[in-house]
Order: sequence, then structure tokens, then C-alpha cells
Amino acid sequence: MQDPVLVEVMRGGRVESCHAGAFAVTDTEGAVLLSGGDIDHPVYPRSAVKVIQALPLVESGAADRFGLDDEALALACASHGGEARHVAVAARMLAAAGQDAGRLECGAHWPSFPAAARSLACEGAEPGPLHNNCSGKHAGFICLACGLGENPRGYVTPSHRVQREVRAALQAVTGTPLHEGDHGIDGCSIPTYAIPLRALAQGFARIGTGIGLAPGHAAAARRLRRAVAAHPFLVAGTGRFDTAVMEALGERAFVKVGAEGVFCAALPERGLGIAIKCDDGAVRAAEVIMATLLRRLLPLGGAEEAVLAPLAAPELTNWNGIAVGALRPAGALAT
Amino acid sequence: MQDPVLVEVMRGGRVESCHAGAFAVTDTEGAVLLSGGDIDHPVYPRSAVKVIQALPLVESGAADRFGLDDEALALACASHGGEARHVAVAARMLAAAGQDAGRLECGAHWPSFPAAARSLACEGAEPGPLHNNCSGKHAGFICLACGLGENPRGYVTPSHRVQREVRAALQAVTGTPLHEGDHGIDGCSIPTYAIPLRALAQGFARIGTGIGLAPGHAAAARRLRRAVAAHPFLVAGTGRFDTAVMEALGERAFVKVGAEGVFCAALPERGLGIAIKCDDGAVRAAEVIMATLLRRLLPLGGAEEAVLAPLAAPELTNWNGIAVGALRPAGALAT
Repeated sequence: MQDPVLVEVMRGGRVESCHAGAFAVTDTEGAVLLSGGDIDHPVYPRSAVKVIQALPLVESGAADRFGLDDEALALACASHGGEARHVAVAARMLAAAGQDAGRLECGAHWPSFPAAARSLACEGAEPGPLHNNCSGKHAGFICLACGLGENPRGYVTPSHRVQREVRAALQAVTGTPLHEGDHGIDGCSIPTYAIPLRALAQGFARIGTGIGLAPGHAAAARRLRRAVAAHPFLVAGTGRFDTAVMEALGERAFVKVGAEGVFCAALPERGLGIAIKCDDGAVRAAEVIMATLLRRLLPLGGAEEAVLAPLAAPELTNWNGIAVGALRPAGALAT
Repeated sequence: MQDPVLVEVMRGGRVESCHAGAFAVTDTEGAVLLSGGDIDHPVYPRSAVKVIQALPLVESGAADRFGLDDEALALACASHGGEARHVAVAARMLAAAGQDAGRLECGAHWPSFPAAARSLACEGAEPGPLHNNCSGKHAGFICLACGLGENPRGYVTPSHRVQREVRAALQAVTGTPLHEGDHGIDGCSIPTYAIPLRALAQGFARIGTGIGLAPGHAAAARRLRRAVAAHPFLVAGTGRFDTAVMEALGERAFVKVGAEGVFCAALPERGLGIAIKCDDGAVRAAEVIMATLLRRLLPLGGAEEAVLAPLAAPELTNWNGIAVGALRPAGALAT
């Protein structure tokens, strides 16, 4: 795998670094509108597909049974910064199903939002699984297990009913056969299944429109997208790309980052889906690619453009606030 | 610029991500022993050349005039984690020249070592320029200015006597003509001059041996290398690659990371220098390349190998401590 350069990092008039990658923009049938690099190579989508992983929670009726509101559904799709509000919503989701943080099997890490980590430390506390960026997804998995009448224990293992439901949803939405035994293990211990960018883009086109989805999946996808659009802070957090973009665009775009430079999006009004993989795993480059594609594919007003334009060519400033360079789209992405 | 893949990131039996880059291993004459990618393309060496940037501090006599000991000289070459000991040594260097932290022009940021940042926050404090990872280098620059009888103010600007001395040292050691007007601005606001990897490797071969250097530079380089070997904690910090390698190898290897995936090293006993640039700026890949080259170029005992081998193929564990993958050398680096 060696894809073309799509993003350059400029400093002092030179290209200091560069990022290669691939991207696919397709419709609900998988017809490619735009692409760069190898879009048929399977990639682990990681957290970029959390909205698909959350479909069974809604479709099964578990979300309704436990009274999960839009905040909870947005957090189920989140890679959050571990800020106080994220933690509170995750705890509330677990309590709704009669469970608590001890049930979470995602592991603990310090909040990824630095100020939240410092604040936690100043309280003399250690991070727990509620601070894990995936705690909302995992609280949703536990609600799903309880809603299905299954024991949540071991819900991260590929053979547990929860992960079988999740795999079935991924398979149905992306049209890609996925095998229980062929997976990587994600940072939060659930299986991640490799899927080509072309199929991921098609899946997100379907998530955005409902076209090509079973009725239950279509209704669940619409509800999850609307929940995230209503609470974009909960899907990421302070200073984060996904939050900023969805605060600006509302239901016009559903965007979700994943680890290792993956990024997916649904653009309902265009009937299109986007899937991106930066070969080297760099989030900074995946964000530039996503912002560039959003600007190209959506008609934007002034306020929207004011948010998107800087994300497509972010300025680099140093510790004295001096502008020292910038990222910019390159190659197939620049033309 | 698109160099070959040198490092792969494995997960679940697949290549999840990969890193392209270039590396040069040369002798003091610039003869290439090993290389990969384009080693004639100029790259910003960033903090990887701090030992060269510190030569004027020693050679000018300023270090002796202000009684700078090995701890201070090690910190002058450092990109440190902002831990308490780093901050204390930087403050001591400034005090030795009758100056204080208010003189530092590097800007402030939270300590890069997370526990140090949390500890600072719990004291109710904000980070200052002493916590900047470059504060030792900057304290050295201020000592140099004072030793030369120059006003330190503006010591980060390319035309200040301090930066002219630094540029002259870089030019002499690497044999590369550098022009005051052709530079990028580094994170800490000083100029960074682009230099081909081949010339950087040659420069580090000279730093490690003294061969090809003016006597004053040779003596200063020897003193700085020994200072760092005596205090490898000060050049980086807790859990850091440079510290671990030099704790294991002592004076057998001088290694120094720079921002955006640059890494340089001197191997005195082999008369060789190493210079690496990971195209995408990834430190994780630059570390794998460096550890792989060190293992290939140096005969290692069991204790040394026990440190280096895991750094050349670091295991990836998730938040539950489960092994989920690993980095490994690839392509020209694997053979």
C-alpha cells in the first residue's frame, strides 16, 4: 500500500512533511463520484463507524426501553474528550439499564481533552472507564445486551450477541461480508473488521439517506444522525473537528473520525458518502481531506465557509503564537 | 517527495498503517554506508541538531564563565518533558548568568510529560517558558549572549549574534551553506535551516569523532556528548526513547529526536552518523527506524539488546493491556 500524497505540511516556504492516503466519495449504489488512491484495499474503520455500531441499540428497541434520549444516542456514536458532560451522560445511560461503570469493558485512560485530565487530577482522582473516549459506545452496548435479555459480561468479544449484532449491521450497511474470525482488536477491546473505503463510503451514503437500508436500519440511522446533529458537543468535545463541523452544518453532514487516520461522512442532501484513510494514521491530514471534500461537495453559506475553510488549510502557530506554516491539500485533492 | 515505506503498523494480521521516509548512514567524509529514500532533499532538522546549536555555548567559553556543569550542558541539548528536574536545571542556568525566566523567548506550553502537566495544574500553576521542552537550549542561548557581552533580547531572531553563531556552527559541521534569509521558524521561534540527510549524517559522524571539525568544535562536541551520556534523563525524560537508549548505551551512541519525524545520531566507535526523516512527521516511525539502525550498526550485549529490540518493534497494547498489534521495519529497512 502506497497511496498518493494528499496533504502537505508547509513551513518557511518548503514542504516540511506530507501525508499519503486514499479517499472515496460514492452514492448509495457505490458509484464513485471522486476518489484518490486505492479504495478497494480493506482498512480497519475503527471508531469512524460508531454510528453503524449503534444501529442495533436503536433498532432492537433497547434505546426506547431504557428511555435513552438524544444526548445518550449522540454519546453512543462518540469518541469524546472525557469532559464532565460526556462522563455524566455515559453514567446516566448505564444507570438507565440498572448497570454501572463497573460493567464497562473498554479500559480506562486519562481524558483526551487535556484540561479535563488536569481537572480530574486536581480532584485527586484517577481516570476510570467512564473517561474512556468510547464509554458512550460501550454504555450503548451494555444497554443493548440488557435490552436483548443477554448477560452483558464479555460484550466486547466477537462471539457475544452484542458484537454479532454489530457485525451484522456493518455487513448489511456496507454490503461487505465480514467474518467473526477475521478482525483486529480496537483500542477499547471490541473487534474491528477491515472494509474497503469504497464500501464504507457507500454505507455512509445509505446512512445519510436510508436508501438501500432495511427499514429498521434506516429509521435507526435517521434517529442517530439527528441526535448527533442536536448535540455535536457530545460526539467529540471542546476544540474538536467533528463538533465544530456539525455545529456549523447541523444535519447537512454527519462526520466521524476514527483512529489511525480514518474518517467517514454522510451528506444526505447529496445522497453521498465519504470514506478516508490516511496511510500513516495522521488525524491532522484526515481532517484536511475531509474539510476539503465537504467544501467541494456542499454549497456553503458564509458562516459555514468561515468554519470549513480554516479546517481545510489549518495554520500552524508556534508557542509564541507566530504563524510558522500551514497544512494544505495536495495532488489529486488540490485540483 | 515520496519516499519508500520503512515502517509498518500491524493489527489483527493486517498492515493497518505505514510510514514512508528516508535515512542516511555516512562516515565523516559523507560516504554512504546505508540509505533509503531521497537523502539529498533538504529537510528541517528541528530539534535533532540541538547538540550542534549548543556548540557555540561551550566553544565561546560562556559555559565555563558561568560554571555550567554536565547537567546544564545536557539540558542545553534537550527536548525535555517539563519534569521538575528539567525545570530546575533550566532555572539554574539562567541564574548563573544573572538572568531569569522572563528572558526566555521560547513561549510557554504545558509539560509534554502528562504527569508533570497534571502535577503543575494541581499546584494551581500555569505553565511558563521554563516548562517549554526547549527551555534548556534557550537558557544556553541566553548564557551565550551574556558570555559574548551581547544583550540577550531578541536572541531568537536570525540576525542576532546568537543565531548567527548557531548558523555558523551548523554550516561548519554539516558542510552545508546556510543563508540567513532562507529558513523556517521552529516551535520555539528560532530559525531552522533545511539540510539534506546526507549532510546531517556526515555532521553527526563528525560530532561523534571530532574528525573534520575545527578543534574548538571537536572539543565542545566531546564535552556535550559526555554530558548527555552522564545525564540521559535530562535530554528527554521519563519514558522517552532518547533517554532509554542513552541510559543503555552511554557514550556509545548519541541520539536526538526532532519534531516532524527527524532523528539524528552519532556512533563514535563506528565513526558513523545517522540522519532520518519520516515523510509524514511521525515520531513513532522515526524511533523504529533509529532503533533498527542502531541494532544493525552496533554490536550489542544482552542488556543493551533487551532495551533496543523492543524499541525496533514496539508492541501496541490497548486500554485493557491487550496486545493488539506492533510496529515493524519494512522494505529497505527490513532486509
